[in-house]
Amino acid sequence: MSPSKYVYDFSEGNAGMKPLLGGKGANLAEMTGLGIPVPPGFIVTTAACVYYSTNGDYPAGLKEEIEEHLHGLEALTDKTLGDPAKPLLLSIRSGAVFSMPGMMDTVLNLGLNDDTVEGLADGTGNPRFAYDSYRRFINMFGDVVMGVDPQLFEDELNAKKAEVGAGLDTDLTADDLRDLTARYKRILAENAGEQFPADPMKQLHMAIAAVFKSWDNHRAKVYRRSQGIPDDLGTAVNVQTMVFGNKGETSGTGVAFTRDPSTGENFFYGEFLMNAQGEDVVAGVRHPRPLEEMREVMPAALEQLYAIRETLEKHYRDMQDIEFTIEEEKLFMLQTRNGKRTAPAALKIAVEQVDEGLITKEEALMRVDPSQLDQLLHPRLDPNQELQVLATGLGASPGAGVGRAVFSADEAEERGSKGEPVVLVRWETNPDDIHGLMHSQGVITSHGGMTSHAAVVARGMGKPCIAGAQDLKIDVEAKRFSVGDAVVNDGDWISMDGATGRVFLGQAALVQAGFDEKVNTVLGWADEVRRLRVRTNADNPEDARKAREFGAEGIGLCRTEHMFMQEERLPHVRNMIMAETTEEREQHLAKLLPFQRADFDGIFRAMAGLPVTIRLLDPPLHEFLPNYTETMVELERLRLTGAPAEQVEAQEALAAKVKALAEANPMLGTRGCRLGIQWPEIYAMQVRAILEAAADVLADTGEKPHVEIMIPLVGFEEELKRMRALTVETADAVLKERGVQIDYTVGTMIEIPRAALTADEIARQADFFSFGTNDLTQTTLGFSRDDAEGKFLTHYLKTDLLKSNPFAQLDQTGVGQLVAMGVQKGRSVKPELKTGICGEHGGEPTSVKFCHRVGLNYVSCSPYRVPLARLAAAQAVLEEKAASTAGD
Amino acid sequence: MSPSKYVYDFSEGNAGMKPLLGGKGANLAEMTGLGIPVPPGFIVTTAACVYYSTNGDYPAGLKEEIEEHLHGLEALTDKTLGDPAKPLLLSIRSGAVFSMPGMMDTVLNLGLNDDTVEGLADGTGNPRFAYDSYRRFINMFGDVVMGVDPQLFEDELNAKKAEVGAGLDTDLTADDLRDLTARYKRILAENAGEQFPADPMKQLHMAIAAVFKSWDNHRAKVYRRSQGIPDDLGTAVNVQTMVFGNKGETSGTGVAFTRDPSTGENFFYGEFLMNAQGEDVVAGVRHPRPLEEMREVMPAALEQLYAIRETLEKHYRDMQDIEFTIEEEKLFMLQTRNGKRTAPAALKIAVEQVDEGLITKEEALMRVDPSQLDQLLHPRLDPNQELQVLATGLGASPGAGVGRAVFSADEAEERGSKGEPVVLVRWETNPDDIHGLMHSQGVITSHGGMTSHAAVVARGMGKPCIAGAQDLKIDVEAKRFSVGDAVVNDGDWISMDGATGRVFLGQAALVQAGFDEKVNTVLGWADEVRRLRVRTNADNPEDARKAREFGAEGIGLCRTEHMFMQEERLPHVRNMIMAETTEEREQHLAKLLPFQRADFDGIFRAMAGLPVTIRLLDPPLHEFLPNYTETMVELERLRLTGAPAEQVEAQEALAAKVKALAEANPMLGTRGCRLGIQWPEIYAMQVRAILEAAADVLADTGEKPHVEIMIPLVGFEEELKRMRALTVETADAVLKERGVQIDYTVGTMIEIPRAALTADEIARQADFFSFGTNDLTQTTLGFSRDDAEGKFLTHYLKTDLLKSNPFAQLDQTGVGQLVAMGVQKGRSVKPELKTGICGEHGGEPTSVKFCHRVGLNYVSCSPYRVPLARLAAAQAVLEEKAASTAGD
Repeated sequence: MSPSKYVYDFSEGNAGMKPLLGGKGANLAEMTGLGIPVPPGFIVTTAACVYYSTNGDYPAGLKEEIEEHLHGLEALTDKTLGDPAKPLLLSIRSGAVFSMPGMMDTVLNLGLNDDTVEGLADGTGNPRFAYDSYRRFINMFGDVVMGVDPQLFEDELNAKKAEVGAGLDTDLTADDLRDLTARYKRILAENAGEQFPADPMKQLHMAIAAVFKSWDNHRAKVYRRSQGIPDDLGTAVNVQTMVFGNKGETSGTGVAFTRDPSTGENFFYGEFLMNAQGEDVVAGVRHPRPLEEMREVMPAALEQLYAIRETLEKHYRDMQDIEFTIEEEKLFMLQTRNGKRTAPAALKIAVEQVDEGLITKEEALMRVDPSQLDQLLHPRLDPNQELQVLATGLGASPGAGVGRAVFSADEAEERGSKGEPVVLVRWETNPDDIHGLMHSQGVITSHGGMTSHAAVVARGMGKPCIAGAQDLKIDVEAKRFSVGDAVVNDGDWISMDGATGRVFLGQAALVQAGFDEKVNTVLGWADEVRRLRVRTNADNPEDARKAREFGAEGIGLCRTEHMFMQEERLPHVRNMIMAETTEEREQHLAKLLPFQRADFDGIFRAMAGLPVTIRLLDPPLHEFLPNYTETMVELERLRLTGAPAEQVEAQEALAAKVKALAEANPMLGTRGCRLGIQWPEIYAMQVRAILEAAADVLADTGEKPHVEIMIPLVGFEEELKRMRALTVETADAVLKERGVQIDYTVGTMIEIPRAALTADEIARQADFFSFGTNDLTQTTLGFSRDDAEGKFLTHYLKTDLLKSNPFAQLDQTGVGQLVAMGVQKGRSVKPELKTGICGEHGGEPTSVKFCHRVGLNYVSCSPYRVPLARLAAAQAVLEEKAASTAGD
Repeated sequence: MSPSKYVYDFSEGNAGMKPLLGGKGANLAEMTGLGIPVPPGFIVTTAACVYYSTNGDYPAGLKEEIEEHLHGLEALTDKTLGDPAKPLLLSIRSGAVFSMPGMMDTVLNLGLNDDTVEGLADGTGNPRFAYDSYRRFINMFGDVVMGVDPQLFEDELNAKKAEVGAGLDTDLTADDLRDLTARYKRILAENAGEQFPADPMKQLHMAIAAVFKSWDNHRAKVYRRSQGIPDDLGTAVNVQTMVFGNKGETSGTGVAFTRDPSTGENFFYGEFLMNAQGEDVVAGVRHPRPLEEMREVMPAALEQLYAIRETLEKHYRDMQDIEFTIEEEKLFMLQTRNGKRTAPAALKIAVEQVDEGLITKEEALMRVDPSQLDQLLHPRLDPNQELQVLATGLGASPGAGVGRAVFSADEAEERGSKGEPVVLVRWETNPDDIHGLMHSQGVITSHGGMTSHAAVVARGMGKPCIAGAQDLKIDVEAKRFSVGDAVVNDGDWISMDGATGRVFLGQAALVQAGFDEKVNTVLGWADEVRRLRVRTNADNPEDARKAREFGAEGIGLCRTEHMFMQEERLPHVRNMIMAETTEEREQHLAKLLPFQRADFDGIFRAMAGLPVTIRLLDPPLHEFLPNYTETMVELERLRLTGAPAEQVEAQEALAAKVKALAEANPMLGTRGCRLGIQWPEIYAMQVRAILEAAADVLADTGEKPHVEIMIPLVGFEEELKRMRALTVETADAVLKERGVQIDYTVGTMIEIPRAALTADEIARQADFFSFGTNDLTQTTLGFSRDDAEGKFLTHYLKTDLLKSNPFAQLDQTGVGQLVAMGVQKGRSVKPELKTGICGEHGGEPTSVKFCHRVGLNYVSCSPYRVPLARLAAAQAVLEEKAASTAGD
């Protein structure tokens, strides 16, 4: 190809030339090559646009090249641009590599002026059509090429209609419209500072230049930045012969999908309008008719469309989204592209196209968006109902919840445990509310962010949660909340959508969702492809079982702190914390031991045959005590209200302990292995419980649990060395007592930057690394999640300072460097070191793919995200393969 | 040298062979070579020890080699090991490369047995001396070679004394001692499980092997780990002819320093004892006499010592610490090594030795420990007084304070401003207490750690502070505190040492310290050598002036938040925070503007001609509001005590704002540039104040301030990009208004890991980087300083999990990696990027040297640490030079 070739006829291009010809143009060229009827035309390349962007002018020879291709078009159509007798009319459309709202879209009917409009009127025998086309052209050209406010034309149109008493645009006569074109030209000249260009060739070059310029307009730049599209791609310009769907009752226009984009049914899904242009379908002024009805009015065209549908699906091997126009019974295709679809549709189409032999399993895997899989798993609000939105908070845990509003955890438990559906509404929740959450359909808080207690616990339980719904004014004592004038009392029905954060009044209908066979088919293919293992984060047997159903291959993170927070244990936990001596503390720990052993017993049975990674106690101890401020306020209350001395003294003792344990920054305080190092008896109890449970399960089932013990928050090799020694000593003592041999491994979380930076040292003490990217994100970015979400992070996202929430999508540039470094340094010492991730990123597709690329062995995520992670892991392999093939 | 040479006569070695011969042996060899009288002997090398450590046995040929050298010694001394007629007696001492307490030290009189003791008695004509030597030998040998508890020998000695009615050891007769040797041998045999070896050759090999083994004993290992000494060095063994200082009134022993180690005076400083062995001087049983008194009793030996002193100082070119023994008027040197000294002594000696032409300036610079310089600057407690220690807290800010105890900031101000010395005693301090701190001699808190408010502010002010003195039970209302039985009432005198954290009862005497000319001489030499610039952290003109006196070359960190906390400004700051709209906030900021401008005006004048880096507002806004818990308690109090409705409502409004701004982890919350991004008007006011002040100073003095504006807590390039744009826009507007041109630069703190990891991106927006290693340590290690010090970090240091406090001494392995990465990545984009450090590490010697090695341009530290940093920076250059020479 000559370096100066900037223009391609449709017949010269193909779909593989998207970078040069843009998406739309390449597909028009492809269809032309397939013999599908496309109005002839040519494409000015993205390279020409890039030159124009840089230099503010056409490259040398472009003008001549355009005109040469124009003459070719004139010869082909036997029409001539600007010829009053047989005027060639053109559509000019931008067409970037990626679809780009914000850029100039379309100028239709280019080539019209006061002379050629007469030729069009004569040629079609339809002056009204000709002048309607002309006034639309001036309007569009004035707006998108010359920058005139389109409202001015709209106002003038309405004025004209009022003058002549026309109700609809179609009531205007040819003469009315001719008059309007004159007025439009005046408006244009007054507002653009120059006359409407009568010369069609001038119109053409002005329109092409306007498309080029639109690449650099503000909206397009902002959009590109938000989507990560490079600024130096440029857009192509499609110059195409006009065809008219509005030439009477043998003309029409339509849009269609080659399969149903909503359900995936293999059904030709589309709509058409007779005597109309494409804009009319989109504008919704007239009601379009189902495609099948074309059989009555234009059976031949419909037959031809069916054939083209077949051709396109076979050719593109994917469901297509098409646009067409019929001009006096002649069918023209104006667009084809891969169609967008819902999650169920994507799955159904992919599986059926594999069955049809159209695509391979690997291609099918790439056709499903992993993040959509999530939708399929949670019960959904029935979309076919009208709901009154009361308020909108943060969509903190997806899913729909419907129940009676209750305002305390106790009431939620009382009513919920009897089978009554309730939704718990709270200012915010705390560990004391867990029993209430367990018995609710969902939880709504007026405070707190995506990581508030309620949100974290709800996600863990797979229950919907809306956090920080600030418009809710909650009156706990009166048991009601209000939003503006609306009041919801105790027991009133409310509904919620935990994905969008919307709270609804009343009892909404739910649609139960579940995995159908198609999903399992696709996930089965994913399992054949992926290398990354997928585990789950689960703290109890139910979650473990659920995750196994979804395909989890083990537990990557079993937190032990939620176990401490259950009602019957909390008193022992608090006594243990208040203990003044090691002996006293050991006595209270001994009471917790049977509970912990039972926890692990259930989990080992649920995960029989699969590895279970148990993290020893992680949160700071004050999390198990009452809130500091509330304690002090209560103390003041007791003192001032003359409470009995012993009650005041007890509260004083509590207040002293709470104060002593209170931390300025608990995230960076006495937690994780820092607990185990200062109070080894706590970790020793947990290790004992784990190994005793393992021994019990072995004795009972004959199968050995796969035990992995994980030490949290390690930053120094010596920390892990000491905790490993404690673990091994305790575990081996239990095994000796029981007289059994059960293998176990000891590893650590990599969740503070120093651990990643010194992973080569830490690996000496570790059998495995699990990257705790929640905390690693907090420390690496210096973002406290509790303080960021709903506050400065929300501001950052709203003002586009950040493109995504780093707690949802892994910050690959920053945090990702540490993960990669941790893996590389760890393996430099232990080549076979097992590595995984157990932050919430383990269930987010782009992050899962990153984990694959840096060579982790597994990701671990909440049960409901396991399918998503399986698919994303497979896609990562396929993307890697594609990249390496592309590099060949 | 043959690979099998494991033994060296003193005459074969020299001081350069320390790695092979150990420190003591190499110096004995060196003195032998200098012709100084040393009891002859030989050295078994460290290499032999390493072999023994690894293989548990002598290397082949070692036994023969030792015996060969022994025979040489016998020939030289005309005595023979084990010869009852002329017995050769030996001392066996360990001698590692670095002095190592915890290893076997010495066995004296080796070679004695029931036969040779008689020979010794005959040869000396002193049976008592012979048997006393023998029983001491069995005791030592039993203890250090055969592992018998020395207390058993001690008990037996006392039993014998009781039997014969002897008061002192010296009351025992030769016969008593002979009997005791028999008893000792029995004790030894019973407890060691084998007989005392009568064969002197066996004694010798057992002693040598015992020294080898002591290298691997627990105490030695722990010590090496704490000092970072490698485990594979091994120790040498010195085998030396015994000389006796206890052979009567013509014998003696002593230790001396060639100059006064306390003051540095060029004065022969030492002590001696007549008729005594070395142990007696150290044990302090008898009172040693000043060296000069030897002139009366042994003038010749003293003359000889003076000559040796001269020889050794000239030869070693440093002050020496020596040990000697005089045996029947004959002088023997037993040890020489470089002497330890105080800071003033180190300075005086170094400067005088340069004057004397003994050493170069560069050598002098290496002779002063930078961390000692700190001592010279703060007033000190007079060491010549007896003080009653009341309690010990954390030494949070060095220096001595003496004053009357006061219990509130207001009282401190009231009495302090009248010139009465007061020490402020508080539970903990807050910003409201600043005026009290300013008028106190020091502050003591019973809570909080090294970075508590009191500690930070006190260090900034150069005032002594003791934090977290938990033993103080403070009763604020009664204005007193107690420690155990001691009670200190309001107005009672107390004293404090902020370096050691000790609180004393009563009015201690102080010694005023100041830089003498020697210090300035050494620092002048340092300035000639160092490449690293030294700036200061200063928030006010007084600190700036003080730092300039100490040689600061600019301000590296001028915090602006302390300015906000002053009494007359706080109301405006609080109004600004409570503002509901931007306009309202701007009105309150306008009231702060004149204050800020005046702050910068004073600082620019004090630092005329030097750069001033001003950091825009950094702390979270809630730091300027009352404490959350206290606010809620007060609200409860007002409600329950029936306060007027308007008072309750005002408190409710305050409580709501305080609650809204409260953060779970303020360290990782809305602070730094996150403030400027959300409320740009705050930073705009500050930038305006800076540039207006600069313009004022220029107009007034004709000299342009060197303005550097620093944006804190940047983690993303886009943050700095926006804040830089805001800064430039505001600054240029001011300059345009004033019609002047003043250059300024805009840079950022690198204080969260992501900033270092993406320094190549951030550098695109920055004129300079300043590493904020305080916060970088907190985030990289996940250590909240407030929650670590006094809590888990103290535990870590106490249990040797960490070797040093990472907030005092930079964690080079972890945090240091990020600093190095930040510099390297930043300069990869901007080779001329100016980089510095402004954390407290900028005033700690090992950290300053690290900063030099990674190529920073400057360090910035508190005014009192500027001299220390200047010296450390020079030493870094010299160490680098030495290393590169060593590598040649």
